[in-house]
Amino acid sequence: MPPKSKKASESYVTMTEMVLPNDTNPLNNLMGGRLMHLMDIAAAISAQKHCNRVVVTASVDNVSFEASVPLGGVVTLQSHVSRAFNSSMEVYVEAYGENILEGSGRKLAYKAFLTFVAVDQMGNPINVPELEPETKKEIMLYEGALRRRQLRLVLAGRMKPEEATELKSLFFKIKEGE
Amino acid sequence: MPPKSKKASESYVTMTEMVLPNDTNPLNNLMGGRLMHLMDIAAAISAQKHCNRVVVTASVDNVSFEASVPLGGVVTLQSHVSRAFNSSMEVYVEAYGENILEGSGRKLAYKAFLTFVAVDQMGNPINVPELEPETKKEIMLYEGALRRRQLRLVLAGRMKPEEATELKSLFFKIKEGE
Amino acid sequence: MPPKSKKASESYVTMTEMVLPNDTNPLNNLMGGRLMHLMDIAAAISAQKHCNRVVVTASVDNVSFEASVPLGGVVTLQSHVSRAFNSSMEVYVEAYGENILEGSGRKLAYKAFLTFVAVDQMGNPINVPELEPETKKEIMLYEGALRRRQLRLVLAGRMKPEEATELKSLFFKIKEGE
Amino acid sequence: MPPKSKKASESYVTMTEMVLPNDTNPLNNLMGGRLMHLMDIAAAISAQKHCNRVVVTASVDNVSFEASVPLGGVVTLQSHVSRAFNSSMEVYVEAYGENILEGSGRKLAYKAFLTFVAVDQMGNPINVPELEPETKKEIMLYEGALRRRQLRLVLAGRMKPEEATELKSLFFKIKEGE
Amino acid sequence: MPPKSKKASESYVTMTEMVLPNDTNPLNNLMGGRLMHLMDIAAAISAQKHCNRVVVTASVDNVSFEASVPLGGVVTLQSHVSRAFNSSMEVYVEAYGENILEGSGRKLAYKAFLTFVAVDQMGNPINVPELEPETKKEIMLYEGALRRRQLRLVLAGRMKPEEATELKSLFFKIKEGE
Amino acid sequence: MPPKSKKASESYVTMTEMVLPNDTNPLNNLMGGRLMHLMDIAAAISAQKHCNRVVVTASVDNVSFEASVPLGGVVTLQSHVSRAFNSSMEVYVEAYGENILEGSGRKLAYKAFLTFVAVDQMGNPINVPELEPETKKEIMLYEGALRRRQLRLVLAGRMKPEEATELKSLFFKIKEGE
Repeated sequence: MPPKSKKASESYVTMTEMVLPNDTNPLNNLMGGRLMHLMDIAAAISAQKHCNRVVVTASVDNVSFEASVPLGGVVTLQSHVSRAFNSSMEVYVEAYGENILEGSGRKLAYKAFLTFVAVDQMGNPINVPELEPETKKEIMLYEGALRRRQLRLVLAGRMKPEEATELKSLFFKIKEGE
Repeated sequence: MPPKSKKASESYVTMTEMVLPNDTNPLNNLMGGRLMHLMDIAAAISAQKHCNRVVVTASVDNVSFEASVPLGGVVTLQSHVSRAFNSSMEVYVEAYGENILEGSGRKLAYKAFLTFVAVDQMGNPINVPELEPETKKEIMLYEGALRRRQLRLVLAGRMKPEEATELKSLFFKIKEGE
Repeated sequence: MPPKSKKASESYVTMTEMVLPNDTNPLNNLMGGRLMHLMDIAAAISAQKHCNRVVVTASVDNVSFEASVPLGGVVTLQSHVSRAFNSSMEVYVEAYGENILEGSGRKLAYKAFLTFVAVDQMGNPINVPELEPETKKEIMLYEGALRRRQLRLVLAGRMKPEEATELKSLFFKIKEGE
Repeated sequence: MPPKSKKASESYVTMTEMVLPNDTNPLNNLMGGRLMHLMDIAAAISAQKHCNRVVVTASVDNVSFEASVPLGGVVTLQSHVSRAFNSSMEVYVEAYGENILEGSGRKLAYKAFLTFVAVDQMGNPINVPELEPETKKEIMLYEGALRRRQLRLVLAGRMKPEEATELKSLFFKIKEGE
Repeated sequence: MPPKSKKASESYVTMTEMVLPNDTNPLNNLMGGRLMHLMDIAAAISAQKHCNRVVVTASVDNVSFEASVPLGGVVTLQSHVSRAFNSSMEVYVEAYGENILEGSGRKLAYKAFLTFVAVDQMGNPINVPELEPETKKEIMLYEGALRRRQLRLVLAGRMKPEEATELKSLFFKIKEGE
Repeated sequence: MPPKSKKASESYVTMTEMVLPNDTNPLNNLMGGRLMHLMDIAAAISAQKHCNRVVVTASVDNVSFEASVPLGGVVTLQSHVSRAFNSSMEVYVEAYGENILEGSGRKLAYKAFLTFVAVDQMGNPINVPELEPETKKEIMLYEGALRRRQLRLVLAGRMKPEEATELKSLFFKIKEGE
């Protein structure tokens, strides 16, 4: 029988990859599409660790690529489940790029939130344990999850903007403060 | 010398792929990460066709995966530049999945917007032609681009929500209509 | 129940691919073997669209490579079924290469004809719908199919050259005109 | 300085590959496109061994696939240069499939002839050594090469059928014997 | 200027990978060759982190595979430099397999020692910083490195067995204790 | 019913591969991990040819990399079963690298011994035929196999060094000769 809840730390995944020639664009930097592919795999493993079920990618939030990772460099992804909702899990991923030969240190490549749905062997959604955040960062990510979920629903046309009560606190502090 | 503007139709790309075993999850469906990888390649080709320059993925907007594509099935991506801004281009991608052996027709897998920056050989941003939309759909996508751009800037923390004038029309029709 | 016939246009496939480092030879051009691999996948999807069955590659006609496609360039394949015979389908594929950064336009990389056999789950051949050509080009390709089929049979040692009545019109116009 | 001629045996290549999941079709057999990809690599190595130059695939003759190779099975390719002409080389490839777990022995998967052109670093054609066949099979393949070359030229529209004197002996023995 | 020494912890690498279909044998378990490929990449990144130089794999010690990792399972590799000698570094790698869907916990897949040589852009060996072990495990691995190095040299025929003074303590405790 | 014994020559495998960009390190040479991946596949095919069963990699002995193989070069692996023990087989692999464009001849890249276990469909070990060596080299490799097996067992902690009677003849000729 699955546990009622699991700690965020039980879903931590670190994935380190070397940038190979086939992963690069004509400027010899890691392509965005390959970064997204790695991001999905790391996040899916985190989601699986939380629920011990097959998981399916449901959505990826807006991702901005901040820094490039050169050919021969190393990209490190770190992910964990940030919150669970019934059968879905939000996973937070950070990726860092590093040109080891230059010794110039890690640079943030991007931060991303993905959502996964746990499914049974027929592909039907199935409930997952709740998430227990412990560290300050885990708690902060946990608390922001409702707001991000509303944004996803609004962007997917599944929630009316005026019902997105959590979202307002992100976008319209001033207006609301009037 | 590059043209002052180019038509949306000049950047049309169709990419058809068969779902191979290595692209699938334990339910034998195409993995989200592979779909994002393909999406980035199709969109990058559209952006290159518009500007005839090396392009770098700058961001991907929120993507929801609507339908799964089975092993042995076919995924078809269609992309074109939806608007150009100085050195950046927004590209629209639609992906359809099809289980040909069942003959059940195409299903929308996802819609996505990616932004690319055109760069010179040093990696510095360089101006691109403006985009001329022609069809009704191209014009609709062109017109929504400012709003999506503001949302990206707000989400990346580069614009204050209260300055996102275009965005308000998306989120707060009711409030504004008061 | 499968339809008695299908239009050529129902089997159209467009496949666009970026030339990645692993696909290239020491001159940084797309290798012939990779082009043939893509050609087989595009053509197999066309054949599947025509018959909604698993298909198996039976043969590839003589292919001449006309132009090279450089690393970072784009190769576009277009294919459709050109004629159906009982359980086999001839598929026509055209491939174009393009160096987008030079903006020098598409060049024909090669034209090819492949034949596929539709099979059931045991691997036994199974009948396919007839093909209805519509455009001038589709009709021309349809009409040449018997001649190409005879050439395949002669080359495979399955038909005596003197029985290849269609083939003579290709090779020996003068002699026959005597 | 390159040798005036080299023996066929100096260009022998054996390539053995295991059939992995990603190489297979829905019947779990090796896909034709993957077989052609392997064929091109084996043949290109043979051509390189003959001329010690970068080589480019110029054409592939008609290939018929005779037997399927199952997932987990083994495919063995054997190739060597069958004749050299100025800057081009014809390479003969045989491929055998084997289901080792069934111990049912090797089956011919296909025979193929490919032509390669030797090029310098600018991509310009450059002369290659002549070929010296030694065994009975090498001599037979060497002698048929002129006929196959004429067929290629006729099929590519570069030679008029009535000028293909060697080809007639293949197609019209009876007629000529009258 | 490179540091005189670096801590073992500065070279820690964690690599987490999902087992995909193409990585598996007919029993649907990760193939040994793929495990070795991953092991080499993780260890090479550790060596690069220690010396900030291009590194070349010089040798791999005897590796025993203890447990299999199933398709869809996860393999986690952890590596760090265990000792440095002039231009070479010994790297220790542990790999664990996990069938997350069964929730049966991590199992040791193998332990391995690889040696890498740091090279300059010409490929010539170049000195690396010394290694400072800190934890009990790091110190134990550091101390065993001389013995393993002698075994490598004896096995490669570069040291006479009777000169392998460190090695004797491994193999002949009883004899020596006489 | 399986044969009681098979000749070494029945398990011979030759694998020839071109070094592609994705297989190379920043010095443009074939990476050690890719060489080990190829080695495992070639050796597994040899083991399968001997026993006509699914085989699982059990261990790899110490491997030293002697020479590098450049991008665009060719690596040739040759393997055969060197001895069989109940359900396990020791396989010998030699790999040669060659820069064909320089015409500088083959160089030994490494020699390796791998052991495989034959298993039934449940993954349980199953007996294999004995090996009959014929050539001088096959006999030499056959005779050294007991010694290498003891070294593996000692290194894996499954045999006490003082019980490794065969091993002593390798390491301690002088001591024993006293």
